[in-house]
Amino acid sequence: MVPTFEDVQAAAARIAPHAVRTPLVEAPALNALTGARVFLKLETLQRTGSFKFRGACNRLAMIPQDARSNGVVAFSSGNHAQGVAAAAKVFGMPAVIVMPSDAPRPKMEGTRAYGATIVEYDRLRDDREAIAAAICAERQAVLVKPFDDAGIIAGQGTAGLEIAEDVTRFGVTLDEVLAPCSGGGLVSGVALALKGAGVRANVRSVEPENFDGMKRSLEAGHRVKAPGGALSIADALMAPTPGAIVFELAKDLLAPGLAVSDDELKQAMAFAARELKLLAEPGGAAALAALLAGKTDARGKIVALILSGGNADFAVNLQ
Amino acid sequence: MVPTFEDVQAAAARIAPHAVRTPLVEAPALNALTGARVFLKLETLQRTGSFKFRGACNRLAMIPQDARSNGVVAFSSGNHAQGVAAAAKVFGMPAVIVMPSDAPRPKMEGTRAYGATIVEYDRLRDDREAIAAAICAERQAVLVKPFDDAGIIAGQGTAGLEIAEDVTRFGVTLDEVLAPCSGGGLVSGVALALKGAGVRANVRSVEPENFDGMKRSLEAGHRVKAPGGALSIADALMAPTPGAIVFELAKDLLAPGLAVSDDELKQAMAFAARELKLLAEPGGAAALAALLAGKTDARGKIVALILSGGNADFAVNLQ
Repeated sequence: MVPTFEDVQAAAARIAPHAVRTPLVEAPALNALTGARVFLKLETLQRTGSFKFRGACNRLAMIPQDARSNGVVAFSSGNHAQGVAAAAKVFGMPAVIVMPSDAPRPKMEGTRAYGATIVEYDRLRDDREAIAAAICAERQAVLVKPFDDAGIIAGQGTAGLEIAEDVTRFGVTLDEVLAPCSGGGLVSGVALALKGAGVRANVRSVEPENFDGMKRSLEAGHRVKAPGGALSIADALMAPTPGAIVFELAKDLLAPGLAVSDDELKQAMAFAARELKLLAEPGGAAALAALLAGKTDARGKIVALILSGGNADFAVNLQ
Repeated sequence: MVPTFEDVQAAAARIAPHAVRTPLVEAPALNALTGARVFLKLETLQRTGSFKFRGACNRLAMIPQDARSNGVVAFSSGNHAQGVAAAAKVFGMPAVIVMPSDAPRPKMEGTRAYGATIVEYDRLRDDREAIAAAICAERQAVLVKPFDDAGIIAGQGTAGLEIAEDVTRFGVTLDEVLAPCSGGGLVSGVALALKGAGVRANVRSVEPENFDGMKRSLEAGHRVKAPGGALSIADALMAPTPGAIVFELAKDLLAPGLAVSDDELKQAMAFAARELKLLAEPGGAAALAALLAGKTDARGKIVALILSGGNADFAVNLQ
């Protein structure tokens, strides 16, 4: 049930024909500002605009051929939705995605463009898991969970394998790896991959304040729920509690977690556009926000940050 | 005087400690749209936000130690300015940059931030070459030309070496390489590097309509001047004639050139932001514009595009 390093390696082989081998690139503008050497893993350039395609593609590839025709069902605010929809298209499977009616427009349009059927729900009133379960039962379809699934975690971990390959190629030794975290599939999968590949770095989750369930759970030593409350601008990072399978990995593999404010997320998005020429959505910029806000002591260290997604409704104009 | 493949290799060794090893990344959104396999060389992520740092860094590294204290002088609308200013900072040399007073604000601010002294001129009235020559004479400083110089061409060519390495790693064989072109330092250097590295692709210049001196010169078989006229939004691509040394290479190495309109440039910038999550300045998006506008028949081919710069005055807001 808890994935192994071998599961991440198997995932990498499964998704290689379909996923983008995203780059790790050094950012001199961040080096100058922080006194660290900073490398960015650009999951904004992944198919569908976020890392979520990795997990979805691996999970769907694991569904036996004779069970594929009934299709898949997922619930998601947008990035997992697009990941599952795009992976279903790759494997010729029907997909139904249960999405909040306030999901960012590009995420909803993207999901529809990959050919998925969208069922909308009210984020505050409806139980999306119940809606998805009912659709699964009716269609005999496979539910593709957003994070708490060995196949999903192993798929997201392939980003960590690539980071390990690239730092070897660059001849550098990582001290810190920062990854945005909602339910924790990405950060736990990446930590699993890095450890298996022999990279001994502190891997840290970065969450929005008040949605920092991973940070609180790591401090408590068991899964606890973050207080939540007013919605964060990081629509992709609002899971209140890390997944159970995720936490089995996280409690052993992660260094203490970090949390950032909405203002820090906005500043990081603006910095990414102005100085790095990269668009990141609020949640996708969380690790960058933690670095820029000094949430971890980076000076003199070698740091990798995951820019995990870029699917926001940006207005971009020449001034 | 005309650089060789060995000069490009020497340049790569010189700039390696200072320049970003920029990524080549596949773009599924472009594959789906064009029926080609499209790879992007992200020079927007180069130090200073454009490829120009490569040539400047190589050229300055070639100045003998005992001639460095008098510094360097350059004229540029902005990207070469920042490249020279940043390279001068690396080598501890003073730099004076002659810039048009209507240069994009981020380019002027960036140049100043690297510690260069800026001398402004009027793009329509003043002779920037005469101004730069006078400053050089007064200071006994080295003039760093924007493109028509073997050291500059070899430096820009290092981007081509990296493309060749990366396509080998990906196991693909390029058919077409498209590069934005002003005086032609980048496209000729890249063509030289690719040929030397054994990549047999059509390498094409992409210029703004009416500033397509390279395209016209290749058609004529000798250097001719483009008509110019109304300024293009591609402020970085307004050289009317390819360089003389550049053309010695270009006439033998380049496939027929392409030209794009301002509207096509704007559409390419919008596509880059919306679909690729990448910011490109108007000139930096020229090769992408040519692909999107169907200026070359890409279907079924393997294409590399250089996104050459990202230094525009963007307003980026969440909607």
